Amino acid sequence: MQETEWIDRYIKPLVTSSGALDLKDDVAVLTPFATTIATMDTLVEAVHFRPADPPYTVGQKLLRVNISDIYAKGAAPREALLSIAWPRYRDEAQFAALLAGIGHDIEAFGIDLVGGDLVTTDGPLILSLTLTGETFGVAPKRRTGAQIGDGIFVSGQIGFGLIGLEAARLGHRDDLAARYRVPVLASLSAARAVADLAMASMDVSDGLLLDAQRLSRASHVGLVLDLDHVPLAEPSDDLAVVIRQCTGGDDYQILMTAPADSVLPDFTRIGRVVDGPGLAIHWHGNTVALPENLGFRH
Amino acid sequence: MQETEWIDRYIKPLVTSSGALDLKDDVAVLTPFATTIATMDTLVEAVHFRPADPPYTVGQKLLRVNISDIYAKGAAPREALLSIAWPRYRDEAQFAALLAGIGHDIEAFGIDLVGGDLVTTDGPLILSLTLTGETFGVAPKRRTGAQIGDGIFVSGQIGFGLIGLEAARLGHRDDLAARYRVPVLASLSAARAVADLAMASMDVSDGLLLDAQRLSRASHVGLVLDLDHVPLAEPSDDLAVVIRQCTGGDDYQILMTAPADSVLPDFTRIGRVVDGPGLAIHWHGNTVALPENLGFRH
Repeated sequence: MQETEWIDRYIKPLVTSSGALDLKDDVAVLTPFATTIATMDTLVEAVHFRPADPPYTVGQKLLRVNISDIYAKGAAPREALLSIAWPRYRDEAQFAALLAGIGHDIEAFGIDLVGGDLVTTDGPLILSLTLTGETFGVAPKRRTGAQIGDGIFVSGQIGFGLIGLEAARLGHRDDLAARYRVPVLASLSAARAVADLAMASMDVSDGLLLDAQRLSRASHVGLVLDLDHVPLAEPSDDLAVVIRQCTGGDDYQILMTAPADSVLPDFTRIGRVVDGPGLAIHWHGNTVALPENLGFRH
Repeated sequence: MQETEWIDRYIKPLVTSSGALDLKDDVAVLTPFATTIATMDTLVEAVHFRPADPPYTVGQKLLRVNISDIYAKGAAPREALLSIAWPRYRDEAQFAALLAGIGHDIEAFGIDLVGGDLVTTDGPLILSLTLTGETFGVAPKRRTGAQIGDGIFVSGQIGFGLIGLEAARLGHRDDLAARYRVPVLASLSAARAVADLAMASMDVSDGLLLDAQRLSRASHVGLVLDLDHVPLAEPSDDLAVVIRQCTGGDDYQILMTAPADSVLPDFTRIGRVVDGPGLAIHWHGNTVALPENLGFRH
């Protein structure tokens, strides 16, 4: 299944309200309050996390993939509804650990858990979270709105999703595996900076290059990324190694455009917005060809 | 797994905000707006619907189990976020049918689909919906609040969940099976009556007797139900047949208490609120013993 195709074909025709932002954004606006937004992300065992991952970290990841969407829109997370489809083959200690991880993060991020549902299944473990947020500004920042001349900024580092997954698979370098299991998000002050300065903003979850292309298309502008400036988990002089990290996904950072001279302590400037469509990448001063695969396509 | 036990043990300790209504109600209040409520219900293939059920009706059922919670709180449904965990073994035509059913009901019930998530799995099909609602009154009606002397009222009919499921299993009486596959809900005018007159209200989804006991406990009052007056899918002079329908679940009607002389065209009066704890049932003028199993316990 090509998820994005099916969304275009069957789901988008059902979406008629302005609050849905045409499903082109990461969040919805809950009317009649333009400042209240909501997102809903689902994690499936063996797809979005590894069956052997500690349930505690799975709970944290569930919270963080959703918080990432809220931060990237220039908002603070507020209230959550949690749905758990729990497999019979997992025991109560695992359930307790999952909820302990969720409990840690709802407290750490100032979220109120207000409802949800729990059902038993034959597996796999499937977790859905609906998270609301309150924007710092008058409305959420969108993928649209990038202006020619803007700088392109990214929070944190890119590549830990991929490198951490590889470490988890190989069973060594627990410090790296931890970065896959529990993404380190941008801060609330970064979310406030999005609200204050972003022209366009989104979270990087499917690979920096793919998400940059999506922002470029939503804003009808060109994005030129300078790969030399991308803050990488594993800095390298090998273009292939750099590209792998920029297409690996699971980073949960913020990608935004803002006036080029913006002072943004939580971000690194990695490129500029130009006229004309699409995405281009530079490396050591030269334009290089885009890889065939820009990221993780659902 | 005893879902309610695990909720008490691991989830309730995480719930600290007043908007959660202690998870004792069917919905949460989204702060800072006491009139905006939210519910999230999940349907799992082979648990909440039959694998052979037409996907179109599964989509309708997903909407209706959530709408039922909103109506029962005296509110109108507003916005939905939809999460689909879609099994590889189902084809695109089934996906299209699922979404057509969802599309039918979001239009019929005036709901805006504003977001969600779609992931592919090895199965089973799992559907989660988060639905917001706007209360007609200043706040949602709760399970608490029943007053001694109130009448007890139920909307629609009780028993179609059970009788319809049996018809679906046997593969005959499609008219009855349809009532299992697609619950016939109370109307928006019934939801408005809840807002105007209910002292306590909840939806009947796990069996009339079990849900009545829950309302009794939440309100710290006694409920006496006269089974002769319960509007049944299959009226019967056989007490066992009556009890089965009152404990079968999947009815998705509204159970509320209101001043005994209330005029409620969408409801039938089936009992009264009394002093003292617990639930009692009457049949042909006599008190009869409660059955061991009052309903469907998760």
